[in-house]
Amino acid sequence: MKKLGILGGGQLGRMLLQAAANYPVETHVLESDLNCPAANLCHHFHTGDIRAYDSVLAFGRQVDVLTIEIEQVNVEALEQLDREGKQVIPHPSVLRIIQNKIRQKEFYQTNGIPTAPFVITQNQTELTQYLDWLPAVHKLGLGGYDGRGVVVLNNESDLPKAFSAPSVLEQKIDIRQEIAILVAVDQQLRSTCYPAVEMRFDQKLNLLDYQICPASIKTKIEIEAIGLANQVVAAFGSPGLFAVELFVDASERVWINEIAPRVHNSGHHTIEAHFSSQFDMLCRIMLGYPLGNPDRILPSAMINLVGADGSSGPAVYEGLEQALAMPHAFVHIYGKRITKPGRKMGHITLLHADAEILKRDAERIKERVRVVASK
Amino acid sequence: MKKLGILGGGQLGRMLLQAAANYPVETHVLESDLNCPAANLCHHFHTGDIRAYDSVLAFGRQVDVLTIEIEQVNVEALEQLDREGKQVIPHPSVLRIIQNKIRQKEFYQTNGIPTAPFVITQNQTELTQYLDWLPAVHKLGLGGYDGRGVVVLNNESDLPKAFSAPSVLEQKIDIRQEIAILVAVDQQLRSTCYPAVEMRFDQKLNLLDYQICPASIKTKIEIEAIGLANQVVAAFGSPGLFAVELFVDASERVWINEIAPRVHNSGHHTIEAHFSSQFDMLCRIMLGYPLGNPDRILPSAMINLVGADGSSGPAVYEGLEQALAMPHAFVHIYGKRITKPGRKMGHITLLHADAEILKRDAERIKERVRVVASK
Repeated sequence: MKKLGILGGGQLGRMLLQAAANYPVETHVLESDLNCPAANLCHHFHTGDIRAYDSVLAFGRQVDVLTIEIEQVNVEALEQLDREGKQVIPHPSVLRIIQNKIRQKEFYQTNGIPTAPFVITQNQTELTQYLDWLPAVHKLGLGGYDGRGVVVLNNESDLPKAFSAPSVLEQKIDIRQEIAILVAVDQQLRSTCYPAVEMRFDQKLNLLDYQICPASIKTKIEIEAIGLANQVVAAFGSPGLFAVELFVDASERVWINEIAPRVHNSGHHTIEAHFSSQFDMLCRIMLGYPLGNPDRILPSAMINLVGADGSSGPAVYEGLEQALAMPHAFVHIYGKRITKPGRKMGHITLLHADAEILKRDAERIKERVRVVASK
Repeated sequence: MKKLGILGGGQLGRMLLQAAANYPVETHVLESDLNCPAANLCHHFHTGDIRAYDSVLAFGRQVDVLTIEIEQVNVEALEQLDREGKQVIPHPSVLRIIQNKIRQKEFYQTNGIPTAPFVITQNQTELTQYLDWLPAVHKLGLGGYDGRGVVVLNNESDLPKAFSAPSVLEQKIDIRQEIAILVAVDQQLRSTCYPAVEMRFDQKLNLLDYQICPASIKTKIEIEAIGLANQVVAAFGSPGLFAVELFVDASERVWINEIAPRVHNSGHHTIEAHFSSQFDMLCRIMLGYPLGNPDRILPSAMINLVGADGSSGPAVYEGLEQALAMPHAFVHIYGKRITKPGRKMGHITLLHADAEILKRDAERIKERVRVVASK
């Protein structure tokens, strides 16, 4: 049996392992937290730091094929493993680009991919030169994740919030819609892609609020978005599962926002709503199997369950029974013991042919299900 | 988190754990084989004999709610755990009935459930009294499983094949179709049931060949079958997930064949083809959640992958890539290292609205996918 290694043991690793259990494969996870969501669904759990060269190298040498469930891993070790002939999916060169928002923007520019105009800034004071760019988005080059490392600068008074490290100052696009497209690339660089999903964000936490598939966009916009997603992923020249986030602006232009070279929050609905889920797809890519079928079985909505504001401690799931009683709801709780404000604790997918029912029930779940600390 | 215990670590336990990973639950498995399919998908694996009183009792005391994935478990220990207030699903009284084919037949008789006429025999010589019953089916009271413990006696010359232990001699019904209905019962004894599936058997191995859902039966037959399945399961008065196997004879009468009080081979298609799978449903029952929705999303066919004749040893899966390339196929390999003739090594589910395409592709998979020992 092939030995499959995953760097990181969060919910993405957990769901990847649920899918991997359908195949003849031996699974390994590297993660420092013994109680992480993926800890008890793998053959071998290795305690170690995914950001440390030595632990990633030692881990990688024990498996046949490696992937990530988070970008913040030690890329030097992956590059060494790649030189040693290990299959690393995605290729470490992709992580080099993605880990740094500056390189990511330059990559889009070099490859002719429409992305919001930007300048690179080194510190806060430098920003005074770019007051005519405001309102703009300031993104830290290294270290951002899940909304951390991103601030909106509306006017000069916001400058103290800006980053004093290499960052991207990006023109604010008049965003009308945010969509995401998953692209799967096998080891022979054949690819397939999932239909677009439309994402709605919680402005406060900058976390996905809920998403709908199919996206409510014109066919010509979806075709353009799919073309762009395929173009940018092809430019990486690497196998993997890529989540491409795009903006549609007021004049119906499509822009690349950013890319995650891994299974992604925007693909959770594929577990039940599509033939091959994003997790199944990545397993197939890693095991050298034919690509799966990304087609939709039914339209879906997906709601993240995040830790409620002002509540930290052992998690309880208020209103979960009401969601479980909905005939079209699929509940996924990630098994994290501790909830914190905004922490991703689970998600619920709804399947229904009627988009209005999906929206109505997504709202109901958002109203009724709360993840709070036990009293 | 509730502690959920499973007696047995085969593929049914494995798929139950895949579903349990969607809920906040701590999973425990008791099984003697360290390399069993369920070993690496649980929080705590306990090495022990599920047929031994002491190991089942000790295991059961460590969890909050217990279930089985095979009937051949120590019922005395489960009865003791039940007296101690442990939730045992299904109730041990159900296992008392099911484990013994004689008691099972008497239970149907007592509850007015149509089942093939039978007599009880104690030994082979006694069978000479029942020559006018032939052709008939002889079923060992205790110890049968997956076709073992069942022989067909066509005429007197077959008598040496009969069992010399308490058994059931059952009149042979002129079976036209075999169907199965899954019934789910929660802890308050509210129930729901899945639509009928039609099963086709491999005559030689007496293993499921492939199955189709919906069954190609008249509505009035399905209604009668569902009524019978609900009636017999209600007679148990126990929560659980029950697979009720039924015969339809030449005159369209419906008979109960047998019942498995657990997740079952006949329900594998529910993983992808129905809203709540049989595994999800049993998790909900054990965790005290609302029952899931048993409705069909799409019609399905399910094909068992069994070890090829004349081949024993480390398993390889010939033709698997051809199945994986089918756009509507979902592959499940159980992770058993060793294949043996007839051993259940995996299954493939096909989803398609067109029953003819399901049948065609089921045949293709049967022709092309073979589980053999590596050379």
